[in-house]
Amino acid sequence: MNETATLWWDASTNTIRYIDQTVLPNVYSIIECTTVGRLATAINRLEIRGAPALGVAGAYGIALAAQVCQKNDLKDFMAEVYRDAEILRSTRPTAINLGWGIDQVIDTMRSCQDVASARLSALAKARDVAREDTASCHMIGERGAALLPCTCTVLTHCNAGSLACSSWGTALGVIRSAVSTGKQVKVITCETRPLLQGARLTAWELIQDGIDVTVITDSTAAHLMRTGKIDAVIVGADRITCDAVFNKIGTYMHAVCAHHHNIPFYVAAPLSTFDTKKRERDVIIEERGREEVTTIGNRTFVPDGCKVKNFAFDATPLDLVTAIITERGVLRQPIDTDLLLSLKSTK
Amino acid sequence: MNETATLWWDASTNTIRYIDQTVLPNVYSIIECTTVGRLATAINRLEIRGAPALGVAGAYGIALAAQVCQKNDLKDFMAEVYRDAEILRSTRPTAINLGWGIDQVIDTMRSCQDVASARLSALAKARDVAREDTASCHMIGERGAALLPCTCTVLTHCNAGSLACSSWGTALGVIRSAVSTGKQVKVITCETRPLLQGARLTAWELIQDGIDVTVITDSTAAHLMRTGKIDAVIVGADRITCDAVFNKIGTYMHAVCAHHHNIPFYVAAPLSTFDTKKRERDVIIEERGREEVTTIGNRTFVPDGCKVKNFAFDATPLDLVTAIITERGVLRQPIDTDLLLSLKSTK
Repeated sequence: MNETATLWWDASTNTIRYIDQTVLPNVYSIIECTTVGRLATAINRLEIRGAPALGVAGAYGIALAAQVCQKNDLKDFMAEVYRDAEILRSTRPTAINLGWGIDQVIDTMRSCQDVASARLSALAKARDVAREDTASCHMIGERGAALLPCTCTVLTHCNAGSLACSSWGTALGVIRSAVSTGKQVKVITCETRPLLQGARLTAWELIQDGIDVTVITDSTAAHLMRTGKIDAVIVGADRITCDAVFNKIGTYMHAVCAHHHNIPFYVAAPLSTFDTKKRERDVIIEERGREEVTTIGNRTFVPDGCKVKNFAFDATPLDLVTAIITERGVLRQPIDTDLLLSLKSTK
Repeated sequence: MNETATLWWDASTNTIRYIDQTVLPNVYSIIECTTVGRLATAINRLEIRGAPALGVAGAYGIALAAQVCQKNDLKDFMAEVYRDAEILRSTRPTAINLGWGIDQVIDTMRSCQDVASARLSALAKARDVAREDTASCHMIGERGAALLPCTCTVLTHCNAGSLACSSWGTALGVIRSAVSTGKQVKVITCETRPLLQGARLTAWELIQDGIDVTVITDSTAAHLMRTGKIDAVIVGADRITCDAVFNKIGTYMHAVCAHHHNIPFYVAAPLSTFDTKKRERDVIIEERGREEVTTIGNRTFVPDGCKVKNFAFDATPLDLVTAIITERGVLRQPIDTDLLLSLKSTK
C-alpha cells in the first residue's frame, strides 16, 4: 500500500519537496521549493492540491517562511511571516485546510520569545500537522472500511488519496483500509473534468497499490448507478459548513444521483476540514481560468469568443450525505452540526 | 440563422459531401465521399454523427450504393445494395435513424422494375428523407419554442443542432425557433465528454447564429440547476423505445438532476427516432474505444493498463421526461406509448 508522502520537509536543505501533481501520470517529478512565493504558485497551479495536503502545505509554508526570514527582531520577523501567510492564504478561497494549517503553525509561533525558538517551533508544529494528517487518514480509513460490504464497487470523484493528503488518503484511505482488511473492493473513478485528477491521480495511485480501478467520464456515473454497478460513493471534502459539503465540482451531481438510486453517499474528511460556524452562503466557490476547460494537451476545443464558466467546487447539502467519516467518528443522518462543533472543539 | 446542411448530395459528381465533425471548430473541412466503405468509416469515426443526420446519411448511402453499383441484372444489383446496406447498418447499434434512413430508400427501390429506375428512385427518396428531416426540425422547433418562457436559460448536452440533422436541428432547432420569434434564450452547453460535441459543435453553431452560449464541464450542470441558473433542459435522442429515451451518455444524469430541481426536461426528436415496439432492454448501448477517454490532443491522461469503460449512450426512463417534442405534436406526461405508436403508424 502506498504510504508515500505527497509533500515533505527536506531537513538537509531546509526546503519543502513535493510531487508535481500536474504532470502525473506521465511524469513523476519531485520539485524542491525554496520560497513562499514558489509555494504559492505551486498551490495556485495545483502542483500541490487536495484539501488535507493543502493543510500540510500551509503548515510547512509557514515553517519555510520562518527558516528563510532574515529578520533578527521578533516583531519584524513575525510581521514578515504574517505577510507570507497572507500570500499563501489568498491562493485558493474554498478549501479551509490551507488556512487551518497556516494558523496551526502561526498560533504556536506566537508564544515564542525569540526568533530562533519561533523557527524551531514552526518546523516542529508543521511536522506535527503532517504526522497528524497521516494518523487521521488511517483512522478515517478504518472507520470507513467498516461501512463497506465485503464485496463492493465504490465510485469516487477527483482525488482524495495519498496525493491529496500527507499520505494514505481520505476517500481512498477508506478504500485502502477496506482492502487491507481483506474486503474485495473495486473502484470506479470519474475522470473529473476539467483537470482530470480522477483519471490521472486516483487511477495512478490505485494501480500502484494493485487495487482494481476503472476510469469513466463523469457523466457515466449515473448510468452505472442505474444499472446496479455502484454500491457506494465515497468522496473527500474541501470544506464542511454546518449545512453543506464543499468538494470538487461534480460531487453534488453524484450526491443527487446516488440519492435517486438509494446508494449510500459517504464523505471522508478530517476534522480540519470542518468549518461549522459558517453556512454555505458564507463560502466563496473558486472560479478558475477558462483555459482549463477550453484547452487540453495541444488542442483547443471551444470556439474563440465563446463564454466558459469553470467552477472548481460545488456544495452538497448535508441531507444528501449518508454519513461523514471523520477520524473521531462517523456522523450519520440526521447529521448533527452541534456534534460536529463539539468534536472540533474537543480536538 | 444557420440553415447549412451537414451532408448533401453533390449532383455534379454523384457523391455525398459532408462537414467533417471531428475537426470542428478548429478546421471547417468538406469531405467528398465516393464509396459506401468510406461512408461507413465516416459514420464509425463520427465524422458524420447525430441521429437525424445518420438517417439522412443512411438514405444517401443507399443512393450512393445504387449509383456506383455496376450490376445490370436487377437481382444482382439489389443483392449488392443489400450488402452495402448491412455495412452501413452495422456501424453503430444504438441510434435507430441510420437503419430507418436505409430502409426508407430500400423499400422504395423494391418496387422498381429495372436498375435504371431503382437508381433514380433511390436518389429521389434519399432527397425526400433529407427534405423531410429539415421540415421536421422546423416543426419541432416551432412546437418546442412555444414551451419556453420569453426569457430563459436552457441547458443542452452534446449536439442536436444543424450538424446533427440535415439542418436547423432538434434541440437547437427549438432554441433557434424560440430566438426567431423574439424570445431571449441563453444557452448553457455541456462540453460532453469524451468527444466534446457540446464544446466543439454546439458552441460553434450557436456562435455563428449570434445566440448567447456558455460552455461548462458536464458535471457543472447540477450545480447550475441548484443555484437557479437553468430554466429548462432540452436534448435530442438517438432512439426512443416505449419506456426510455436513448441519447448521449450524460443525458440520464441531467434528467435525474432536473427532476430533483423541478426543472422541465424536454426531448426534441422526429418520429423517425421512435422505436416504440421495442423496450429499453432490447437496445444495445454502444461501447466505444478506450482511447476516446484516455487520450486528448497529444496527451494521454489515464495510466497504462488502467481499465476504462466508454458507453456512448445512456437510457432515460420516460417518467423523467417532461415532454417529447415531435414534428407531429408534443407528448406530455403521462407519455402515452400507444399515442406514440399511432403517430408513427399514421406518418
